[in-house]
Amino acid sequence: MQLTHFTDLGLRVLMYASQPQRVTQSGKAVTISEIAESLHVSRNHLVKVVHFMASHQWLSTTRGKGGGLALAKTPDQYNLGQLVRILEGTTQVVNCAEPPCALRFGCGLKGLLDEALQAFFQSLDRYTLADIIQGKTQEILSELQRIHIVQLSTDV
Amino acid sequence: MQLTHFTDLGLRVLMYASQPQRVTQSGKAVTISEIAESLHVSRNHLVKVVHFMASHQWLSTTRGKGGGLALAKTPDQYNLGQLVRILEGTTQVVNCAEPPCALRFGCGLKGLLDEALQAFFQSLDRYTLADIIQGKTQEILSELQRIHIVQLSTDV
Repeated sequence: MQLTHFTDLGLRVLMYASQPQRVTQSGKAVTISEIAESLHVSRNHLVKVVHFMASHQWLSTTRGKGGGLALAKTPDQYNLGQLVRILEGTTQVVNCAEPPCALRFGCGLKGLLDEALQAFFQSLDRYTLADIIQGKTQEILSELQRIHIVQLSTDV
Repeated sequence: MQLTHFTDLGLRVLMYASQPQRVTQSGKAVTISEIAESLHVSRNHLVKVVHFMASHQWLSTTRGKGGGLALAKTPDQYNLGQLVRILEGTTQVVNCAEPPCALRFGCGLKGLLDEALQAFFQSLDRYTLADIIQGKTQEILSELQRIHIVQLSTDV
């Protein structure tokens, strides 16, 4: 049982964009190209997930030279359970409809799987983005961004 | 977040094979072809999952004419959480290794997702196969098998 790649990417983007001193220290906004490079993920997939998260007012984006993306709120305002529910889109652990399951009008399994999924989300509901980006995670994110900024200045 | 098709099929097979009076009433063992037909699922996929479940001593199988499959134990001896853990194979909600995630040596997200997944399984741990196949589910399973047996005798 895995989260979709879309959810996984979405959470990584929020973590990456969460570094508080990033713009004031470097003068450079976080860009999709930077995240693609630093996290070794597909730029095309990132474009979709960033667009989705901007449409949900989770990210603020600015276009053009010097533009980029940033968290629209403080990290403690992003509830992890809510993020995952919305990024996942469907909250069905099994697909009873496609192809139609012969048991779908009276299935004793479905209710128990739904209950277990609720337990999964309720566990995540206890945390926010702020809980994820502390300590070692914060250090790695900060270091990844430092490396990127050094590379940028070396390229110039 | 969905269970794999393999797990989904495995659970459906166990439910289908759980009808207590099936062999004594009809004289016919449950076969893979029957399940494929009754549940509208791929025979090839069923062969794999039945083989897997027989190797785990969840199903007993007999070959040849009149052969088929049956539960190896009583339904209350199949813990739902254990079934799903084993059928799923991996208990990773995100794949941090492939491609290698830049945050994998200090990720604050991974632990919280693992914790939520444990909550999912612990919820399922409270139930067995016997809990799933009661009431309406029992009626539908029984009716599906009755229809199949009537068709068999009509074909002959």
